[in-house]
Amino acid sequence: MGGGAVKVRALSSLGRDIALARGGGAFALRERSAAATIVRAVRRDGDAAVLRIVRRFDRPEARQRGLVLDAKAIGRSARTCPPETRGALDLAYVRIRAFHERQRPRESRRRDARADLRLVPSPLGRVGALVPRGVAAYPSTALMTGVPSQIAGVRELIVASPMPRDGSVDPALAYALELVGATTVYRAGGAAAVAALAYGTASLGRVDKIVGPGNAYATAAKWLVSADVGIDALQGPSELIVLASSDADPDVLALDLLAQAEHGAGAFAALVSDDADLLRAVDRALATQPKARVFTYRARDLRSAARAADEAAPEHVLLAGRAAAALAAQVRHAGAVFVGMRSAVAFGDYVAGTNHSLPTGGTARWASALRVEDFVRWTSCVSLRGDLRGLARAGAAIAEHEGMRFHRASMEARA
Amino acid sequence: MGGGAVKVRALSSLGRDIALARGGGAFALRERSAAATIVRAVRRDGDAAVLRIVRRFDRPEARQRGLVLDAKAIGRSARTCPPETRGALDLAYVRIRAFHERQRPRESRRRDARADLRLVPSPLGRVGALVPRGVAAYPSTALMTGVPSQIAGVRELIVASPMPRDGSVDPALAYALELVGATTVYRAGGAAAVAALAYGTASLGRVDKIVGPGNAYATAAKWLVSADVGIDALQGPSELIVLASSDADPDVLALDLLAQAEHGAGAFAALVSDDADLLRAVDRALATQPKARVFTYRARDLRSAARAADEAAPEHVLLAGRAAAALAAQVRHAGAVFVGMRSAVAFGDYVAGTNHSLPTGGTARWASALRVEDFVRWTSCVSLRGDLRGLARAGAAIAEHEGMRFHRASMEARA
Repeated sequence: MGGGAVKVRALSSLGRDIALARGGGAFALRERSAAATIVRAVRRDGDAAVLRIVRRFDRPEARQRGLVLDAKAIGRSARTCPPETRGALDLAYVRIRAFHERQRPRESRRRDARADLRLVPSPLGRVGALVPRGVAAYPSTALMTGVPSQIAGVRELIVASPMPRDGSVDPALAYALELVGATTVYRAGGAAAVAALAYGTASLGRVDKIVGPGNAYATAAKWLVSADVGIDALQGPSELIVLASSDADPDVLALDLLAQAEHGAGAFAALVSDDADLLRAVDRALATQPKARVFTYRARDLRSAARAADEAAPEHVLLAGRAAAALAAQVRHAGAVFVGMRSAVAFGDYVAGTNHSLPTGGTARWASALRVEDFVRWTSCVSLRGDLRGLARAGAAIAEHEGMRFHRASMEARA
Repeated sequence: MGGGAVKVRALSSLGRDIALARGGGAFALRERSAAATIVRAVRRDGDAAVLRIVRRFDRPEARQRGLVLDAKAIGRSARTCPPETRGALDLAYVRIRAFHERQRPRESRRRDARADLRLVPSPLGRVGALVPRGVAAYPSTALMTGVPSQIAGVRELIVASPMPRDGSVDPALAYALELVGATTVYRAGGAAAVAALAYGTASLGRVDKIVGPGNAYATAAKWLVSADVGIDALQGPSELIVLASSDADPDVLALDLLAQAEHGAGAFAALVSDDADLLRAVDRALATQPKARVFTYRARDLRSAARAADEAAPEHVLLAGRAAAALAAQVRHAGAVFVGMRSAVAFGDYVAGTNHSLPTGGTARWASALRVEDFVRWTSCVSLRGDLRGLARAGAAIAEHEGMRFHRASMEARA
């Protein structure tokens, strides 16, 4: 246990610690019932209900006309974005585009003497993207949802983002929205925005799918409306597990862990290493920020550390140092794996090119990063010809077994 | 309106008719609260609660030990499957496999001087597949969920299927399960099975994702658990819209429509044509089955019929006759499109090779047929190297704007 560093825990408690941090999931009963009340109100009263909620939380003097911004208004605000920020967003956009271009969906097809079978992709018609506001606007989130939507060829991208106190539109956000070709901004966030996108209001047509992150209320609302509209995922607080071998740089790792903690309440940041000296050095570096909550674990060996991380299925894993990086193929149940000491997780949040919208809360057991695939749907196409007697005979036998006599007759009529 | 055929409606009412048939969605409040009660009971009491429900609905003398069947027991029942049924299932299996093989996921990757970015697919660990029972067992559903799971490489496929009155396992179902390599059968269905799969019981470990169709209670339960486990889709009653040109065969179309009606209460079957004589002829052929509820519509032209079908986004569309078949590319919002008079929808239910698990209730606006993709998850892998000053500068500018100072510092530390 490498004496001294009293905070260092045994690897065996990582699973329990992350489960505790996750609590009951992406939202609790309290958020669920609050979201249900809001969804009901917006379904009933539309924009008026949204305005009541906006006035309560964001901007008391908000007026109905101000709820919807068109592409022209977005353009006006974008022109005031400072050149340095613009250049940074351009670089991010180009890199995110380049990676997501590789995900373009391709038709799959099988032909034989009797059948031409195809699975044909087509872009979604109208997508609503949530872009939350924290202390500031998040243009990076607009890029991460907008780029795959744009590559898929979505006809209309409607962005829902809370109205700031001064009623303006953040210029960097507007610039990002222009880059991804957003057609409309609905200036509300949270559960109200989700309900408005799902069911439509006087000023906003309903969408086919809602994507993007939100607070626990927005997430609960996404779940509530998911029987009536497509959703991407139910995202909870951010998570990082760092696996570090002895050659990792402790001061730089401390920055990664503090960056993770910076995501605020509920964020989970953990460091696992087989090197007690490294753990102590990181602890010392973290001492400058005593409030940041970071868990550190001592592992007997890195392979068992990788196994524990894979079982926890966190949002991010960083493999820092050469021996840790060698285990990349062992960690599959994670939203994103950053390989090597130079691959700061923060690069993935902005400019690496991968998507920062990732599965959290252990949902990486079945869910994935936001992808072009999330903005596409597929139609099966079946065209039959030639001698269909063999198919009809087999189909009839199964239909008969399943008690479907007209199914049987309809196939035999083609033989 | 082609006098005589009083049941023929105007095309403009197709949208309203299908909306009425769909009601409030895949399940109503009544089913939702019943499902919630069952999910709570199973989370609390596990197998015992499942048994209570099985005893109530399926098999009064059911015992706990009988809830789980292993691969050996499946094999014993499969050996009693008659050769003709076996041959039919073999043919279906081979064809479904051949089509789904084409959907194998492939890693996407982008490399440049500074980054190696990958999106890596991996199979899900444990999948639960619902195989409902109607008057009979449905081996075809076992193939449709099992084959894509098998191709994806899912480690364990657990099938949940209600226990029949006599306690046996249907030999054809068992044979299909053996073909797809199901490891376990949990002998319960509906909301109880969904809850058992989602949260686990003493005899059944929880799964990562639940796929497959069910009644409204099972569907409501899938929605309820979807914050805690992956699900494929929320399927409601089956739907078919036939678009027919004058060269289509009315007697055969009547069989297709009756086959659709055969899916039982809630199923929607509609015929649209620009030919009044054809509509009358189909009506006459349907008269032999006066109870089957089929809607017929007269369209001014087939192009507007295709537009109306696309807007309705039904589960199945059949394009019958040459002029109708020519419109295949116009219909994208449908689960599956069957092209040409010979392409009976029933072939797609059993032996064509495409999947019969399709989006219903208008969810084809955003959802797709069950695919290999549904059994895979993707991990982003980020590996950075070389001169990272440009990336760090751009990343820092965005992080600064978003108020994330440690994000900024962690990138600058790599420059």
